[in-house]
Amino acid sequence: MLKTRQILGCSSGLVSHRWKPYSSTGSRQVSFISISTCSKPLLLSSSSSSSTILPTTTTLLLPGSSPRRTRFGAFSMSSAHSGPNPGGPSSSVAVHSAGNVRKINFCQWCGGPTKHEIPDGEEKIRAICTVCDKIAYENPKMVVGCLIEHDNMVLLCKRKIQPSYGLWTLPAGYMEIGESATEGAIRETWEEACAEVEVLSPFAQLDIPLIGQTYVIFLARLKKPHFSPGPESSECRLFALDDIPFDSLAFSSMVVTLKLYAEDVKAGQLKFHYGIINKKPGTSPSDIHAYTLDYHLQS
Amino acid sequence: MLKTRQILGCSSGLVSHRWKPYSSTGSRQVSFISISTCSKPLLLSSSSSSSTILPTTTTLLLPGSSPRRTRFGAFSMSSAHSGPNPGGPSSSVAVHSAGNVRKINFCQWCGGPTKHEIPDGEEKIRAICTVCDKIAYENPKMVVGCLIEHDNMVLLCKRKIQPSYGLWTLPAGYMEIGESATEGAIRETWEEACAEVEVLSPFAQLDIPLIGQTYVIFLARLKKPHFSPGPESSECRLFALDDIPFDSLAFSSMVVTLKLYAEDVKAGQLKFHYGIINKKPGTSPSDIHAYTLDYHLQS
Repeated sequence: MLKTRQILGCSSGLVSHRWKPYSSTGSRQVSFISISTCSKPLLLSSSSSSSTILPTTTTLLLPGSSPRRTRFGAFSMSSAHSGPNPGGPSSSVAVHSAGNVRKINFCQWCGGPTKHEIPDGEEKIRAICTVCDKIAYENPKMVVGCLIEHDNMVLLCKRKIQPSYGLWTLPAGYMEIGESATEGAIRETWEEACAEVEVLSPFAQLDIPLIGQTYVIFLARLKKPHFSPGPESSECRLFALDDIPFDSLAFSSMVVTLKLYAEDVKAGQLKFHYGIINKKPGTSPSDIHAYTLDYHLQS
Repeated sequence: MLKTRQILGCSSGLVSHRWKPYSSTGSRQVSFISISTCSKPLLLSSSSSSSTILPTTTTLLLPGSSPRRTRFGAFSMSSAHSGPNPGGPSSSVAVHSAGNVRKINFCQWCGGPTKHEIPDGEEKIRAICTVCDKIAYENPKMVVGCLIEHDNMVLLCKRKIQPSYGLWTLPAGYMEIGESATEGAIRETWEEACAEVEVLSPFAQLDIPLIGQTYVIFLARLKKPHFSPGPESSECRLFALDDIPFDSLAFSSMVVTLKLYAEDVKAGQLKFHYGIINKKPGTSPSDIHAYTLDYHLQS
């Protein structure tokens, strides 16, 4: 029997199933792939949980909130969610997240109500339109940013927005449809630090399965020796490696990136790093140091 | 005046705006970031357009179509679309794509109708719910896969599904929410080649802004010397470097990956590669060799 499917070209992952009705026996449990592949674990310090981190699991009303979505995190989320937070897992309360399939109640295309089942031939529960049969897929998001080297120092931005208001980060944000990772990293650096940069090389890919994010960080240099805080930064400053404020960083992804960078510089060789940032069980969502870097690979 | 936004933790990128109405003056033109940053261009051969590639811009009814979404591409798409096609840009007819914002007609959360405007403080048109004010964001998708080395050969799979039925590819597919890139690449290899692999190192990140995809390819080795076609493959075979069927590859991303790999092997050093795959203007969407690799960086 032929199976035919019309795929509607779309980046938000909706496809049309037309050849058969969906199974009604699909499990109601959200499935996910276990985060268990760990080699060469690189434990991060857990002794320096910053008391200045604002609680990010509660809906907040604070000054300095920017209308720019790429700077925002998940302030309020249930345990079934993974967040769009570009800042890292500090805002997540879910230990294992499989996205928001249960929150997708209607079809974006036709407006029909959805059912939540495992489509024929798949393994995961999806939100399926009961009218047009389209499936709403969810995929991890890429956060792209720059690690800017200048006179043996690195450029950090102090956040003037939530989450992690007042803490330091590399310039980074969500990669947009229609741009490359380098273009996104350059754009974010311009927006957050008013700095024109040239990307030199890829430095790290850090997956955070817990919240469905992948960080892609590039080494970059200033085209001109000028930078200043953008609308979402209260301050931009160059830090010598020994002065990096590890106790006042905004996100675990920044802790990992800057630790790897400092190690590479001290070893005299910059590498490309891949790794998975997993949360230590039982730790506070706001403790950005309570993570392990697993599956650490280098090129 | 305070600006407050409640962010609903979600991976599909819906956030709630509550502090002010949206501008009604937003342009109706879909905005996108120009793909113009090109350094160190590495031109691919354009002399070997395969006549065996099926037209992928038309809705097809063919045997071998699998119900698995991660194997499908955009068979039918308008010029305003970017496709979820994990296979590469050969299925896209859009020269510049900014996603499917105009196709998002309803809110996935509350079912309300959307308007298409530039939200306050942003630069791009988004689909905004007129009832609950949530915004439906679209982001690039990651396609993860393995380049498996075995006895100085690489493992390729002949596709038994569309798009690019009958053509050769590395095992690869969409990264899912809740998994890392390495987990996704291992999973896809198991599904397409029934091969258990160990990931050795990251090899390439290739952005394809045209269709909103980023390929992440890892070098891997067989844990056991066994492989066989999965449900979506008609054949799996090891190829010596000089025998790689460049004229019968499924996607431009595979052409680029395998060319870079062959170059590295011949040079005696495997590197990590970053690059942007752009379509040559005026070429056929089905010509997988009519692309340039721009912004090629190595680590």
